[in-house]
Amino acid sequence: MQPSAILFDLDGTLVDSVYYHVLAWREALEEAGIELAVWRIHRKVGMSGGLLAQALLRETGRVLDPDLIDSLQRTHAAAYRRFDDRVQPLPGARDLLAHLTTLGVPWAIATSGRLETAAVALSVLGVEKRVPVVTRDLVPHAKPDPDLFIEAARRLGVPIADAVVVGDSVWDLLAARRAHALGVGLLSGGYGEDELTTSGAYRVYEDPRDLLRHLDEIGLRSLEV
Amino acid sequence: MQPSAILFDLDGTLVDSVYYHVLAWREALEEAGIELAVWRIHRKVGMSGGLLAQALLRETGRVLDPDLIDSLQRTHAAAYRRFDDRVQPLPGARDLLAHLTTLGVPWAIATSGRLETAAVALSVLGVEKRVPVVTRDLVPHAKPDPDLFIEAARRLGVPIADAVVVGDSVWDLLAARRAHALGVGLLSGGYGEDELTTSGAYRVYEDPRDLLRHLDEIGLRSLEV
Repeated sequence: MQPSAILFDLDGTLVDSVYYHVLAWREALEEAGIELAVWRIHRKVGMSGGLLAQALLRETGRVLDPDLIDSLQRTHAAAYRRFDDRVQPLPGARDLLAHLTTLGVPWAIATSGRLETAAVALSVLGVEKRVPVVTRDLVPHAKPDPDLFIEAARRLGVPIADAVVVGDSVWDLLAARRAHALGVGLLSGGYGEDELTTSGAYRVYEDPRDLLRHLDEIGLRSLEV
Repeated sequence: MQPSAILFDLDGTLVDSVYYHVLAWREALEEAGIELAVWRIHRKVGMSGGLLAQALLRETGRVLDPDLIDSLQRTHAAAYRRFDDRVQPLPGARDLLAHLTTLGVPWAIATSGRLETAAVALSVLGVEKRVPVVTRDLVPHAKPDPDLFIEAARRLGVPIADAVVVGDSVWDLLAARRAHALGVGLLSGGYGEDELTTSGAYRVYEDPRDLLRHLDEIGLRSLEV
């Protein structure tokens, strides 16, 4: 059976931005006097900024003061903007999206980031205005809650249970399961394969190009690239 | 049986520097006009600079021109130096080294980096002059060749087969196997647990603090921290 739609995460899945987000969070935490090893930050990227700040503070045993969480998010956004011109599409990302459009398979983007932060990524990908883009601003709860993917499917007018969710982080795959969608993991965000598999990935590929080569495994026509 | 010595990798194992090395390599490649997704660079860190540059060029299908490899290494070193003041010990690293010294267990450091790059990390760790530090400059081949660990064991005067190698990358663990030493993996460099286990890790811990809590599993007395 062919999936009715593909719902993509953005950072680490279509654009090569995860490591810049990680170091921007490291800077924000450092400015607030909070020490946390960088790999632990990496392992939380993909949640919304608010949830991520909460999760990081919980790991350090700090009180989850809403003002501190706000200020961390603002410092992260400012630090991340300095990396804006480094953000590139991941290999095969543009080809994959174009191929889905050619096949007539609807697709959308569902990101835990805010529209402001996502704008650069959408622009380097060349995502057209008609494509639904659901950001953190538009739903009550970000990943690992399923709201972002459910809203993306709603905007495409397809049942979420017939859609495939593609993401690089455990949060995408956990959200996919809660939404009853099939989850596909990509290694391009820097998570290990086991982490994605044990979070429920149906299949794990290296990056968008590798997924494009194996689309038949999720019921679509692959492109030899 | 108690291990006769512990041989530590440095970056990602005792100091939180891997992500800075990754972005410094990204900068060096970009300056040379070579595009490569950041996670692929992350997966190569832990080899010597020369081997890493070769491996990255091979992935891009580029000719392995020795001048280009030299120039990449120089640009990486310059970019990494800008992050020098960010490099901190990983949680528990100093306590772990002090505890081994208290137990009378000899330990040494074996890093694929050059002494010049390693100096900052050794200084933030407070490693004393009497501790053997084997860098890339001192052996013919870096990891995943076993030379660095074999030379470290030789300097401590212990048989390598009775030593435990502690590292965060698959290259450490592959080198440990080739040296016939027991390898222990740490997640603090950002590799996934399965990658370390399938490369031959006897056990995998989160970071130096977590290893310190579980030293009994490798035949030493743990410290409750």
